[in-house]
Amino acid sequence: MNNIDFAVLGTGGIGRRALEYSTSKDDLTPVAACDRNGVAVDHDGLDVDELLAATEGNIASEAGAASDASGEDADPRPDGGATAVKQSGEMQGVAASAQADPTETPIDDIIAESDAIDAVLVALPNLEHDFIPRVGERFAEADYEGVLVDVLKRSRVIDILDDRAATFEESGITFVCGAGATPGFLTGAAALAAQSFVEVESVDIWWGVGLKSGYEDNRGTVREDIAHLDGYDIERARDLTDEEIEAIVEEHDGRIEFTDMEHADDVLLERAGICDADDVTVGGILDVRSDEKPTTTTVAVTGRTFDGERGTNTFQLDDDISMAANVNGPALGYLKTGVQRNRAGEYGVFGPADLMPGF
Amino acid sequence: MNNIDFAVLGTGGIGRRALEYSTSKDDLTPVAACDRNGVAVDHDGLDVDELLAATEGNIASEAGAASDASGEDADPRPDGGATAVKQSGEMQGVAASAQADPTETPIDDIIAESDAIDAVLVALPNLEHDFIPRVGERFAEADYEGVLVDVLKRSRVIDILDDRAATFEESGITFVCGAGATPGFLTGAAALAAQSFVEVESVDIWWGVGLKSGYEDNRGTVREDIAHLDGYDIERARDLTDEEIEAIVEEHDGRIEFTDMEHADDVLLERAGICDADDVTVGGILDVRSDEKPTTTTVAVTGRTFDGERGTNTFQLDDDISMAANVNGPALGYLKTGVQRNRAGEYGVFGPADLMPGF
Repeated sequence: MNNIDFAVLGTGGIGRRALEYSTSKDDLTPVAACDRNGVAVDHDGLDVDELLAATEGNIASEAGAASDASGEDADPRPDGGATAVKQSGEMQGVAASAQADPTETPIDDIIAESDAIDAVLVALPNLEHDFIPRVGERFAEADYEGVLVDVLKRSRVIDILDDRAATFEESGITFVCGAGATPGFLTGAAALAAQSFVEVESVDIWWGVGLKSGYEDNRGTVREDIAHLDGYDIERARDLTDEEIEAIVEEHDGRIEFTDMEHADDVLLERAGICDADDVTVGGILDVRSDEKPTTTTVAVTGRTFDGERGTNTFQLDDDISMAANVNGPALGYLKTGVQRNRAGEYGVFGPADLMPGF
Repeated sequence: MNNIDFAVLGTGGIGRRALEYSTSKDDLTPVAACDRNGVAVDHDGLDVDELLAATEGNIASEAGAASDASGEDADPRPDGGATAVKQSGEMQGVAASAQADPTETPIDDIIAESDAIDAVLVALPNLEHDFIPRVGERFAEADYEGVLVDVLKRSRVIDILDDRAATFEESGITFVCGAGATPGFLTGAAALAAQSFVEVESVDIWWGVGLKSGYEDNRGTVREDIAHLDGYDIERARDLTDEEIEAIVEEHDGRIEFTDMEHADDVLLERAGICDADDVTVGGILDVRSDEKPTTTTVAVTGRTFDGERGTNTFQLDDDISMAANVNGPALGYLKTGVQRNRAGEYGVFGPADLMPGF
């Protein structure tokens, strides 16, 4: 595959790690990144090290991009290290990078450059269900021809995206949705594991995340996870203060177990024809006080074979592999496949399972 | 996906099971099948039950299709069951079906119908390395536009196919090679499991097959496996009589262990950019006297993550699932994906890992 020039919207945990990840890949060149206060564009390739150093500990603008609660922003935490960066007031986040400019219209600024961008990783929190679909729509309105990839989690967002499929097709956009770890990596694994069967009876996804050292970077993710707890929903989680989130974490001794999560694996597997959404269960354990995984991430797919047997195929991720690796590898992998599809003229909305061998 | 009309070349174990499998799939219509003595074509869809009943225990013509040793053919073993079929002399195999005609040019007969065939599963044994590539070439010479899928195993055949890539591209053929269980299913699993890593250090594929009840149907497969044993190669295995094969099986008490097999997983993963061919090992245990699997089929992918960890992701197939399910599900799954690629104008030679998310 030829080189892919890509942009990242959002420089929270996922956006920053995606930039870092791409430096290990010869065929991926990050050419643009933004958060709500700043935008950096270099079509010859961003200096990722400088950008990451400039935004280290300085990432809260991501949450703000999706909500009005700018008070949720973490305080800038200037790194006393080798880089001298502008990290105060309006110049926090991406704007603190020497490669960046402050802006009030970061997404529009990226869209303005999108003729020279093959793919965009949308690493924004989706605390309003239609936020990422609306971002996609803005690219379509600008007649963007390329790939959009998101790592969203919620089942209902897929429908909102599907409603816009014609708009994306018209523009020439290949939108790959739910392309992180779960949904994403594990959805793909379920689609592959299903290949032994003519009928899939159940897909059980069970994840473990140890997030001690990544906690600061992944507050948005933790907030989204809390929305899955009994008594919470996405609106309530969005309105929680950082202190309230800390209290919830404390209540669970830092180790929160989730069952029957609304993760889009269900609708993504259903729309690929693999099983009914109802046959998919997603749960897991998040430990924010340890980097050890509290449980082994496992996908178990049970089905019936054409010759009348029943069985369960399983896919397991090593406990030693970070969430960041399991999100960003697949996200950029699906991005590459999205570009391949896009270049072949396949537009519209694709889930991870649509990019696997047919079922 | 719209309906796919497909043909099967060869009605040995894999060809017959593929036909049977497809009856569980609404979007797959088998419209043609052949062995070396007969060809059956019905563009409205073959009567698979009748065809299978007619060829049951009557399959040895498959081996003959690739070799001159017609003496290797198993004796016809007429099924005393419900179907009255013509099963003697030249009328054995596919020709015994009421839907079929005897022929001396089965592959040409299928090619003559190929305008109305979306995909062809080449389920012929490849006891000469260039046999399947040459079959592909014949389709290209007839300007076939569609998909060819094979379940070949040998690494060196991939190069022979790649040498013909331009021919396939010119014709409009999407050739998906090595799309059975291994290579195929497990190659795809390795490609997916690699998504956590920026560098893959090793891929270990270990399979178990219990083939008691399927032994008669899969003599071609057993013969190919024997070629992997110390002191044997593909030429020597081809020239073995059935009695000599039985003696080898007996020598191993029916349970043969293979290590360092020349399975195309290695080159298929290398050409997809996932790891070096040398980093891939394939081995397994074949038990022809039990349907219980002698060992659990496992793919273990070890690599290094972008954030400096090492780990091993694993994919395991349930012991209760037959080889037939693990070969034919993926073969037809990759066939579907091949058709999707073909319809988008992507031609040439693709391995299973090329049809997975990019690495």
